[in-house]
Amino acid sequence: MHAGKKYSLKEFILWTRRDIYRLTILAVIPTILYHFCGFTFLSISWVPVALLGTAISFIIGFKNNASYGRLWEARQIYGGIINVSRSFGVMIRDFLSSKNKSQDVQIIFYRHFAWLTALRFQLREPRTWENMNDWRNVEYARNYHIAEKTDKIENVLAKYLSTDELAYILTKKNKATQIMALQSAHINKLAAESNLSDLQLQSLQTGISNFYDNQGKAERIKNFPYPRHFSSIASIMLNLFVFLVPYGLLNDFNKLGNGTLIEGYSIWLNIPFALLLTWVFNTLDVVGESSTNPFEGSANDVPITNISRTIEIDMRDMLDETDLPAAITPENNILL
Amino acid sequence: MHAGKKYSLKEFILWTRRDIYRLTILAVIPTILYHFCGFTFLSISWVPVALLGTAISFIIGFKNNASYGRLWEARQIYGGIINVSRSFGVMIRDFLSSKNKSQDVQIIFYRHFAWLTALRFQLREPRTWENMNDWRNVEYARNYHIAEKTDKIENVLAKYLSTDELAYILTKKNKATQIMALQSAHINKLAAESNLSDLQLQSLQTGISNFYDNQGKAERIKNFPYPRHFSSIASIMLNLFVFLVPYGLLNDFNKLGNGTLIEGYSIWLNIPFALLLTWVFNTLDVVGESSTNPFEGSANDVPITNISRTIEIDMRDMLDETDLPAAITPENNILL
Amino acid sequence: MHAGKKYSLKEFILWTRRDIYRLTILAVIPTILYHFCGFTFLSISWVPVALLGTAISFIIGFKNNASYGRLWEARQIYGGIINVSRSFGVMIRDFLSSKNKSQDVQIIFYRHFAWLTALRFQLREPRTWENMNDWRNVEYARNYHIAEKTDKIENVLAKYLSTDELAYILTKKNKATQIMALQSAHINKLAAESNLSDLQLQSLQTGISNFYDNQGKAERIKNFPYPRHFSSIASIMLNLFVFLVPYGLLNDFNKLGNGTLIEGYSIWLNIPFALLLTWVFNTLDVVGESSTNPFEGSANDVPITNISRTIEIDMRDMLDETDLPAAITPENNILL
Amino acid sequence: MHAGKKYSLKEFILWTRRDIYRLTILAVIPTILYHFCGFTFLSISWVPVALLGTAISFIIGFKNNASYGRLWEARQIYGGIINVSRSFGVMIRDFLSSKNKSQDVQIIFYRHFAWLTALRFQLREPRTWENMNDWRNVEYARNYHIAEKTDKIENVLAKYLSTDELAYILTKKNKATQIMALQSAHINKLAAESNLSDLQLQSLQTGISNFYDNQGKAERIKNFPYPRHFSSIASIMLNLFVFLVPYGLLNDFNKLGNGTLIEGYSIWLNIPFALLLTWVFNTLDVVGESSTNPFEGSANDVPITNISRTIEIDMRDMLDETDLPAAITPENNILL
Amino acid sequence: MHAGKKYSLKEFILWTRRDIYRLTILAVIPTILYHFCGFTFLSISWVPVALLGTAISFIIGFKNNASYGRLWEARQIYGGIINVSRSFGVMIRDFLSSKNKSQDVQIIFYRHFAWLTALRFQLREPRTWENMNDWRNVEYARNYHIAEKTDKIENVLAKYLSTDELAYILTKKNKATQIMALQSAHINKLAAESNLSDLQLQSLQTGISNFYDNQGKAERIKNFPYPRHFSSIASIMLNLFVFLVPYGLLNDFNKLGNGTLIEGYSIWLNIPFALLLTWVFNTLDVVGESSTNPFEGSANDVPITNISRTIEIDMRDMLDETDLPAAITPENNILL
Repeated sequence: MHAGKKYSLKEFILWTRRDIYRLTILAVIPTILYHFCGFTFLSISWVPVALLGTAISFIIGFKNNASYGRLWEARQIYGGIINVSRSFGVMIRDFLSSKNKSQDVQIIFYRHFAWLTALRFQLREPRTWENMNDWRNVEYARNYHIAEKTDKIENVLAKYLSTDELAYILTKKNKATQIMALQSAHINKLAAESNLSDLQLQSLQTGISNFYDNQGKAERIKNFPYPRHFSSIASIMLNLFVFLVPYGLLNDFNKLGNGTLIEGYSIWLNIPFALLLTWVFNTLDVVGESSTNPFEGSANDVPITNISRTIEIDMRDMLDETDLPAAITPENNILL
Repeated sequence: MHAGKKYSLKEFILWTRRDIYRLTILAVIPTILYHFCGFTFLSISWVPVALLGTAISFIIGFKNNASYGRLWEARQIYGGIINVSRSFGVMIRDFLSSKNKSQDVQIIFYRHFAWLTALRFQLREPRTWENMNDWRNVEYARNYHIAEKTDKIENVLAKYLSTDELAYILTKKNKATQIMALQSAHINKLAAESNLSDLQLQSLQTGISNFYDNQGKAERIKNFPYPRHFSSIASIMLNLFVFLVPYGLLNDFNKLGNGTLIEGYSIWLNIPFALLLTWVFNTLDVVGESSTNPFEGSANDVPITNISRTIEIDMRDMLDETDLPAAITPENNILL
Repeated sequence: MHAGKKYSLKEFILWTRRDIYRLTILAVIPTILYHFCGFTFLSISWVPVALLGTAISFIIGFKNNASYGRLWEARQIYGGIINVSRSFGVMIRDFLSSKNKSQDVQIIFYRHFAWLTALRFQLREPRTWENMNDWRNVEYARNYHIAEKTDKIENVLAKYLSTDELAYILTKKNKATQIMALQSAHINKLAAESNLSDLQLQSLQTGISNFYDNQGKAERIKNFPYPRHFSSIASIMLNLFVFLVPYGLLNDFNKLGNGTLIEGYSIWLNIPFALLLTWVFNTLDVVGESSTNPFEGSANDVPITNISRTIEIDMRDMLDETDLPAAITPENNILL
Repeated sequence: MHAGKKYSLKEFILWTRRDIYRLTILAVIPTILYHFCGFTFLSISWVPVALLGTAISFIIGFKNNASYGRLWEARQIYGGIINVSRSFGVMIRDFLSSKNKSQDVQIIFYRHFAWLTALRFQLREPRTWENMNDWRNVEYARNYHIAEKTDKIENVLAKYLSTDELAYILTKKNKATQIMALQSAHINKLAAESNLSDLQLQSLQTGISNFYDNQGKAERIKNFPYPRHFSSIASIMLNLFVFLVPYGLLNDFNKLGNGTLIEGYSIWLNIPFALLLTWVFNTLDVVGESSTNPFEGSANDVPITNISRTIEIDMRDMLDETDLPAAITPENNILL
Repeated sequence: MHAGKKYSLKEFILWTRRDIYRLTILAVIPTILYHFCGFTFLSISWVPVALLGTAISFIIGFKNNASYGRLWEARQIYGGIINVSRSFGVMIRDFLSSKNKSQDVQIIFYRHFAWLTALRFQLREPRTWENMNDWRNVEYARNYHIAEKTDKIENVLAKYLSTDELAYILTKKNKATQIMALQSAHINKLAAESNLSDLQLQSLQTGISNFYDNQGKAERIKNFPYPRHFSSIASIMLNLFVFLVPYGLLNDFNKLGNGTLIEGYSIWLNIPFALLLTWVFNTLDVVGESSTNPFEGSANDVPITNISRTIEIDMRDMLDETDLPAAITPENNILL
């Protein structure tokens, strides 16, 4: 996520640079044809364009709404993981405190960090429909680095899991799921050895269900894109609209200069104004698009690396550890 | 679901081919009458058409919103089934791990796959209001195959259930419901034989309640269509609108050519422009309509065959089975 | 609910027949006055009418949204009743299976059907604000029959309750509430006799709480109409709008014929066009209105008779009964 | 709430009588200045007014949405209280039925009615931002009476609490909270005396948590108004809009009469039409405003007196009491 | 929050004083250029401005919706803290009432107040994206004082925690989290000493999970701003719009005076009208912006100091303490 005050207009213009080139060309063509070739019949009525504009507002509004909803839900899910981690943490610690089992407590805590790690690596894997290969984002992504792209999962997991468990987990299809299954096996073993009462086991098992819930919800957002037919029709309509706008404005700008010192030249104002209008609609759509996949590694992602670290700090602080890792901070305003 | 980057414009045009024919005819008629028969009084005012256009935008926006909501809820429900399956799986496995009951564990796991199977077959049965008999979808459906249409449920269930249970289940009205009832009977028998504590039974019974919840929610979306009166009035309004648009634009396009090289011919531009405008609104509605029934076997379905397989893989991986089935992958970008 | 493909345009026209008469008269009056009496000053500007039209679109959109929300929530509630009934059913059956209490199981199951019966009769009682006395619905209601209007509740309950309990329940204010209270008393008696463990009692008691929840939610929708002041102002605005539209279009249609073969007669086109426009808005409102009360016995109701029967079938199937009742099917496409 | 079919147009006109006076004056002034003083430059362009009108539609739509949401949530909360009361009622009754504790059952039931009483009195206390001092509502409020304004809380509580408890509760800041705390103390005492098992205590304690939840949610709506800055800017914009409308329409109505028998007089039509348009927008806002505070004692309140009585009837019916109080019925269509 | 009737127009004007200056300048420039320099070609067509205006209405509507949602959710979260505090309070008090542990009860109650304190201090820390450094808010903030800015957290915590615990907590990263962890340790110690049953422990542990949930939700709103790209594009579009409006209105106001006594001067009306229109849109945006961060210490914050005090009063009243602190009341209508 962007953790600063705002994106500047300059950043927006750079980010949509190539869109601006394209939109300019679209505006230049009819203007030249109208002015130099006398194709004045190109100045179609504004009437169908305006209606299309209203429909486009609805469509983009709808898409941005859904997109914001996906981003916000993704953040809620990771917020939920924070909350359950804290509850689960104090329960593990306090249920076992009178049992001389502090080593098990530590193993379970660190295995939890392993789960967080596996989950964030899985969520940051690429999907066909994601936008990180768009030139816009490739370029912008040079401003920050994505830990899950540069680190190796086995190295990170090795900090949290025993060698045996690490080897075991690396053979599994869905690593996060099976790490959590190890947690379940561990607490059941503790219960079978009478270190946990049946009720305590139930409370902890509920915690595990909650983790699975949140993991599954995050995977749902990851694996189920904003429906492609909704997305495609919006693009098609938008492209149609930005194509038509410069034609629809021709007439107005041609007449604008009549009787003034720019008579005969006012038609050229069509270019900046059409560009302005189409750029605004186009950029709105791009903004919406760039939040639909909140785990793709973009500048507008949910900061899951940061959140996972926060959980690790909070939980190790619960055990009164002293060498807590540093919080993850924004790089060029971007927090991942 | 479509698992690629997007539907291409070409796919959209092919998909709405017959709509385009119809809309073209609707645009040609008034243009010919106006131009050749001199029925210039056909050029009705744009004023009522524009107001209708605004209302149509609201109606289609509303319908697409509801449609998206149904699709997304359907995906959430199946996401919920994934999550509860994982929690239920680790509980069954770990509660019984110290009891030498690994065979019961396996029976319950495989009966769960039977439940998933029965459920997906039930959800993919046709309903009167679904759209798979529309020529659009009949044609497109040749790109992929729907397992629930080609496989036989008894053959698939036979892989997961004992012969007795299979015979018993095949006599039942709602097979998924009664398979889950067998799960309940099984865990209660295990509890009566002291293999599960009362609290463990309660936790598992809660799991069964959650499965029933998700099954019932999926059946609700399957059996309760987007209300027919809302849907019908939207169609009627849309048809009215696409009928009126070519009349409303006549005048503007007639005047467009005045004093230019296409004078007298500009009226023909009415046809492509009216087509463009009506096609956009019509396609928006078609897009919305094609998500209202997320279990009909269309290209925009929730991929329940794929999800059921994912659950099977994850759960068999929990038991450390080695011959895991392959994940279901998209065919021509369509994942079912 | 309508269980077919769609309402036809013909059905809509018949259904709104009297509205069409009224709207026609509203359109005829200004046209006649304009044409025959020369009251050309009646052709008010379209400007305030258009703004009113936009506002009306908002208002009707808002109302239809709320109306759809009420219908959908009502269906969710009854979906919830299905789900909890299944969970409650397997729990009752399996908790008591080893206790030789199959008769209690049957009594509780049938008392549950009694609760479903009492609830659906209560929900289909008339309320002042409901629309079943509107001529539209009176007429359409001849296409299907409403079991709760023709059957007698005591006769239906007699199939499910013992004579004593039937007599007791018939003295009560809210019969559904007190039938469910009998369920609670019964399971507590079973627990006091050691046929249910404390935890099993808790699980069942939670089931009863869930039934009360769903009953209460259905009663909330039944007893709390779409707020009358929101509804009334929408009607007033709509009436104002349909009154003004024919005046606003006069001028455009008068000019339409100038220089054509219908010169002097084009004013008459005002009538069909005003009718078209006002009919669309009026019908949209009627469609919304006809879903605000999802338990009134209209063609767009939640099919609670059908759902109650489905639950009965599923639960009796759980007990392996063989003479299951038939499912309730649509009559002239209407499922109640 | 209004429990009838609808508010009549007459009621609306009476209710907004003074608004009509104000809006008329606003329309008369520019008309007179234009006509008699020749200030024709007052006829500003409709263009900025129309844009303002669109923005106003959004703002009022948004406000009415929020307002409806508050009203509906308030009703859901009280619906929740009904549901939990029934569950709690049967649990108390049936858990203690074999313990010869019917007197405790009765004390707890009646203390629950005391809680309902304290809560409804607290919720009907005035707040600065509420609208019951607006002349509109002062006048309309003569049609019905508000029990919480005329009764004394101590007299009503005396029917439900012992003298000691009544005296104790009257010393407390938040009476409802502390009455519920007495319930908790009572059931814990019963559990300590072995009249309730630990699990039964837990179930009842969950009931108390649910009551606190619903009480807190109702207090949240009571104590946190629709944000004053949102509300104030909406008022300011609306006032601006109704001020400008009569100016924006001047020109159209002036030209309307040209060449007709009312030439020179058509300007006067500006007054009724401007009034119509501004009244509609103004009344929409007033309607929204009158639902934002659903516990203020207005005609559009959630009927909490009625609901509290319904709960009392249902619960006393559970105990088979015979002298049940009468249900509270609407007075002049208003149910409180 | 503002606890009065409304913000006055005067307050709004003062609050947006500098915006007014800026918008006036933007309106003056084109008017002067048009009038004195004869740059009449500046009077661009209203057509693109109107479409932009519609899009802006959508964008601001969307933003205000999200902003209201964040504020309302923040209030719900703190409402949730009230509710769970009451439930947790009565449970602690009543579970331990027969155990002679009233001192532990008091320690836990006061530690809860410490948690409330730590939480509100954390939530009122500044964030980069918050608006309290905007001149608007700096100025307005002189009307009230923010306890969390003037008090020292260690002094306030000292009233609620023992010296040891205070010293321990002050070393921790997230103080609220670790105070709640102390609660967990304390109740587990009580349970280990047999002062609480396993079930009672479970109920209390659920309370702690709920507190963590609500804390985490509040932190989520605090730490995850309204996405900066949505916010930035809205600002850019708004600035573009307010820039263009005065140009778009030039022509209409120039013609307005023709043939009247202000002929040649009516162009100056462009300034107040453009200002009016742009001010309205600008202020709408400012209003939305000022609710997106509900814990920043602004006049529109959720009143968390007040709510924390209310909880303290209610809980100490449960213990029948007599020297209850005073409720926190609004200062110049602002309640924090």
